[in-house]
Amino acid sequence: MIPKDHPRYHSLVRRENIANAALAGIVAMEGVGAHGRGEAFDYLIGEKTTKSAELAEKTAAALFLTAKKPVLSVNGNTAALAADLIKDFQQATGALVEVNLFHRTEERIEKITRLLEEKGVLVHKGEIKRLLPLSHDRALCSVDGIYSSDVILVPLEDGDRCEALVSMGKTVIAIDLNPLSRTAKTASLTIVDELTRALLTITNACKSLGEDEINRLACDFSDKKIQNKDILDNAVKDILENLSDALDRKVQA
Amino acid sequence: MIPKDHPRYHSLVRRENIANAALAGIVAMEGVGAHGRGEAFDYLIGEKTTKSAELAEKTAAALFLTAKKPVLSVNGNTAALAADLIKDFQQATGALVEVNLFHRTEERIEKITRLLEEKGVLVHKGEIKRLLPLSHDRALCSVDGIYSSDVILVPLEDGDRCEALVSMGKTVIAIDLNPLSRTAKTASLTIVDELTRALLTITNACKSLGEDEINRLACDFSDKKIQNKDILDNAVKDILENLSDALDRKVQA
Repeated sequence: MIPKDHPRYHSLVRRENIANAALAGIVAMEGVGAHGRGEAFDYLIGEKTTKSAELAEKTAAALFLTAKKPVLSVNGNTAALAADLIKDFQQATGALVEVNLFHRTEERIEKITRLLEEKGVLVHKGEIKRLLPLSHDRALCSVDGIYSSDVILVPLEDGDRCEALVSMGKTVIAIDLNPLSRTAKTASLTIVDELTRALLTITNACKSLGEDEINRLACDFSDKKIQNKDILDNAVKDILENLSDALDRKVQA
Repeated sequence: MIPKDHPRYHSLVRRENIANAALAGIVAMEGVGAHGRGEAFDYLIGEKTTKSAELAEKTAAALFLTAKKPVLSVNGNTAALAADLIKDFQQATGALVEVNLFHRTEERIEKITRLLEEKGVLVHKGEIKRLLPLSHDRALCSVDGIYSSDVILVPLEDGDRCEALVSMGKTVIAIDLNPLSRTAKTASLTIVDELTRALLTITNACKSLGEDEINRLACDFSDKKIQNKDILDNAVKDILENLSDALDRKVQA
């Protein structure tokens, strides 16, 4: 349906994937709206991986490769957009993949697990308990998965859960296109980039970075030479620049 | 469910209304994502009616009150968010209200018509023909409604249809939170504001503006003293200012 030469082809395909996944019960209705918010911010950062996001992605790769127990937490939107990419990501990072939902139903957990397994992902299915310092089902995760991880990647997460994971002493890496969101500000490291671009870049970095570079990035992060605050400021600056350019073009026109 | 003292209460209620309307078949899945994009831009303009949007809303009121055949085109999102407000809007402006859908099905037309009528709106149901210079069902509208209107308000419209209506010589007033969108740039006048705030402000302006003020606004618009380009530039400037403030606060923190 969507012509391949449309300038915003990839964005429109992702929009369609999310709508179809919502109809299939994989994405919650709240996830469709959240995707729309992300689309708006992606438009503002220029629908490309910025230099600052690339540094965050390489740092994420280094943190994953030097972690004791790295975990990727997958929700409905992540599965709908990136099930294809997660197998490669898992092989490159050695991460455990756990399905963890904010709007949790057993039916959605099963559907998402099946979708990932069809794509060759090894899905972790440990004992589930209320382990995060949060009320209700949002506290659920597996004992030997998310609960015992030291580094966790949470794409498209909500602010409360991100905060809860940080308070447990974990290194929390978020993927969030809104650099002003609570998740973005709360995470240990935030990748302000679109999910599929981010996962691809992390996977490629794991394959191409040498051991020295990996150690240097991990050290720079622990020594606070790479700081989340700077990464977020740079994302806001990128948006400011793009908007100023749009304004200049209009003023000239 | 949503606590009334939540700082973003109104935004969260609207999000819930859209999700419920999608489940009820009033809002198309595409409409849920579109609402999310709007939310992101509303966040960036500060979730309030800016001075420049207020001028656009007062001008819209003047254009409606001086029109020969003013029409409000209602889609699923508009009905879900503002069915309550449209009766008052209709009484204040004297506008004909027509249900017109991008993702058109007779079932959705009927559901939206019923919702509006339950709220006391008089819904126009004229003969429907392919009348707009567009392919497929997107060309459908009523002969003695949208087709013969001189001034038309299209909240949350798509770019192609907005362009088609302008090319037919109509004064097209759009409500669009993205000042960079094709709809925003194509419309005769764009209100960069959230839908319910915009409709309320137009309704109040119709009630409170004196005849002199109405004529002055309508003249300023036809004399190009009020220009869409300036209104859009001001919206981008408002976003730039809000983002710069956020950056300053972070740099200070």
